Amino acid sequence: MLKTAFRNVRSKHPLIHNITNYVTVNDCANLLLACGASPIMADDPEEAAEITGICSGLNLNIGTLNSRTVPAMLAAGKRANELDHPVVLDPVGAGASRLRTETVLRLLEQVRFAVIRGNVSEIKTLASGSGTTQGVDADAADKLTEDTLEEAVALARAVAEQTGAVVAMTGVIDVVTDGKTAWCIRNGHPMMASVTGTGCQLSAMTAAFAAANPGRILEAAAAAVCTMGLAGEIARGRLSALDGNASYRNYIIDAVFRMTPEQLEKGARYEVR
Amino acid sequence: MLKTAFRNVRSKHPLIHNITNYVTVNDCANLLLACGASPIMADDPEEAAEITGICSGLNLNIGTLNSRTVPAMLAAGKRANELDHPVVLDPVGAGASRLRTETVLRLLEQVRFAVIRGNVSEIKTLASGSGTTQGVDADAADKLTEDTLEEAVALARAVAEQTGAVVAMTGVIDVVTDGKTAWCIRNGHPMMASVTGTGCQLSAMTAAFAAANPGRILEAAAAAVCTMGLAGEIARGRLSALDGNASYRNYIIDAVFRMTPEQLEKGARYEVR
Amino acid sequence: MLKTAFRNVRSKHPLIHNITNYVTVNDCANLLLACGASPIMADDPEEAAEITGICSGLNLNIGTLNSRTVPAMLAAGKRANELDHPVVLDPVGAGASRLRTETVLRLLEQVRFAVIRGNVSEIKTLASGSGTTQGVDADAADKLTEDTLEEAVALARAVAEQTGAVVAMTGVIDVVTDGKTAWCIRNGHPMMASVTGTGCQLSAMTAAFAAANPGRILEAAAAAVCTMGLAGEIARGRLSALDGNASYRNYIIDAVFRMTPEQLEKGARYEVR
Repeated sequence: MLKTAFRNVRSKHPLIHNITNYVTVNDCANLLLACGASPIMADDPEEAAEITGICSGLNLNIGTLNSRTVPAMLAAGKRANELDHPVVLDPVGAGASRLRTETVLRLLEQVRFAVIRGNVSEIKTLASGSGTTQGVDADAADKLTEDTLEEAVALARAVAEQTGAVVAMTGVIDVVTDGKTAWCIRNGHPMMASVTGTGCQLSAMTAAFAAANPGRILEAAAAAVCTMGLAGEIARGRLSALDGNASYRNYIIDAVFRMTPEQLEKGARYEVR
Repeated sequence: MLKTAFRNVRSKHPLIHNITNYVTVNDCANLLLACGASPIMADDPEEAAEITGICSGLNLNIGTLNSRTVPAMLAAGKRANELDHPVVLDPVGAGASRLRTETVLRLLEQVRFAVIRGNVSEIKTLASGSGTTQGVDADAADKLTEDTLEEAVALARAVAEQTGAVVAMTGVIDVVTDGKTAWCIRNGHPMMASVTGTGCQLSAMTAAFAAANPGRILEAAAAAVCTMGLAGEIARGRLSALDGNASYRNYIIDAVFRMTPEQLEKGARYEVR
Repeated sequence: MLKTAFRNVRSKHPLIHNITNYVTVNDCANLLLACGASPIMADDPEEAAEITGICSGLNLNIGTLNSRTVPAMLAAGKRANELDHPVVLDPVGAGASRLRTETVLRLLEQVRFAVIRGNVSEIKTLASGSGTTQGVDADAADKLTEDTLEEAVALARAVAEQTGAVVAMTGVIDVVTDGKTAWCIRNGHPMMASVTGTGCQLSAMTAAFAAANPGRILEAAAAAVCTMGLAGEIARGRLSALDGNASYRNYIIDAVFRMTPEQLEKGARYEVR
């Protein structure tokens, strides 16, 4: 199943429109290329909807929001909905400022999302409409570990039901659910948190997997999450005693580039609840 | 000839003003440093023309256009023309949206370009004033290979005559022409397409080569194209079984940094028609 | 002393708000993670002050200024002052355009800075209120070497007194002073100038060191400068015959990631005047 989802990305080369932050945008582009997709970035309201029209998936990331990109996101999101292209939301830092929280709520009101990919603090903010996120990482109180898994699955399910989107909530364990079935994924490595934008990259890749696997969004999102986590493990294994987070960043993207669908199928560690 | 063109970049250290997209801007800066030039980025209309004034070349790339950068490009372009600095245009995605196509046509009307560097789809859009570009890569129908070379040379020559600029049209084969002489360059490696922004980087480097070789723009552009392609070959030779497109990205810039004028002269593969 | 300053960063994980240029922003984020801090980027006036409120330090870098980011810098700077968070100014290219020079003067008028980190040309511009900076590197006439050290220390001291900030002026030798005590630091490697944004990265890291060491800003800034320089030396030692400035960029960040407080203490080379 994971194998097929990945193979579809490699064979269909979906073109993904990204309206994303300028911090990690280059890594998002190279990761999309690594998995077999193609990136295009366009964030001006004048062209956002039109560019969406030539793509097959859309990735909206609020990492460095501004007054110009909010209307571009709304226009692109609506156009993607009309065309029935999957739209991914990455609510980076939702809860950390009024602008971010309100923008996310507006997006949820006006755009139908296929997948929402965020950490626990961000997903909690979506659930409650307000939040206390301390920055762009999950709060200490919001770690997704074995101890909090039960509760986390319940939260993700609730937000999936509330929004109609597949929720991919990432932490030490990752939970991917459509409100009914929940995948609990145990790939990845803690050192991924020391590379900026692994979450953003995953969101971009999720849009590619969703675009290449229409009608199977839950499996597509789970496959993307497993791919990213497995790449983090493979890359970790390559680190020399001198390598740090910058080399690790490159090795993660390299690992996605080199990954085969069979390797993914074999390396993915998950249970379905 | 190529040797001299490269040597001039290394000895003159031209300062290049870039108004370029935020996706690949860091790579453009590091590639300019790698070849011996210096980068400066400034895209606000309030300072664009002034910054151009302290530089010796200008690179305009429409990869992530917005309402603020279009007037900055026009102001910087006109100032560079007054000062007789070479201006390079990279029409990223021209044909993919009305904003991009119209901006390129406006730039061509108001600014005199030394070099236009793009893929076949983008150059076709310039020729016809409209296009069907599917994203930022050349359309499948627009591959520049041995089979389509004759036609491609004719297209590049026509656009060079029409615009007065040297046209550097890149693909599997690269064509660089001033409308009369045409260089057909066979350096490079297909894997370069899996690194975001190798085209953007080449455009930035072309501005440096043009700035360091006034009056010899055709040779300067051809030398830049050969340098990038040769770097892609050298970098390809370095890849380990675990390296993917992220490491390749670094190795390409590294190869330019390490390249000597003699190595370029020896490694360049081209014919002049 | 340096040891303690670094240890505090690693144990307190300060969250640093950066309003910085889009050229080197990804490297700033990864360097902050490498030293033990966390980055957040937010440059819209609507959220800038609020985001500052959840952080413990602020880094303002004028590398790619625009009409939207100037008010965001002022708002965030004032809020940080109210909260008594250290604010770092990186006056990239001050003197190169009226917009940059005037923005820096406005920032100095309205915001109280803990540290100003720049090259000699930029610091001279602050001293005189006008400048002749040629781009983002120090002018040839402004090299900070053994020959010009005396004069450089005097300049840095004067600007420190004039602004009330610790001045970290970087060149072949780095001078860090609060107007009284001056650290002359001889770490680093000339090849660092061939990587875009090592200065920007240092400024971001300085904000982290200052935030983690309140009341000891001079030592904190000196420790950050030594850390960056030592990382440049360690990374230089790793370069293979094929590695160039792109690999060097990664190795510098890696070296910070791997550095221990003891290694810093031992490797730092400075005299205090």
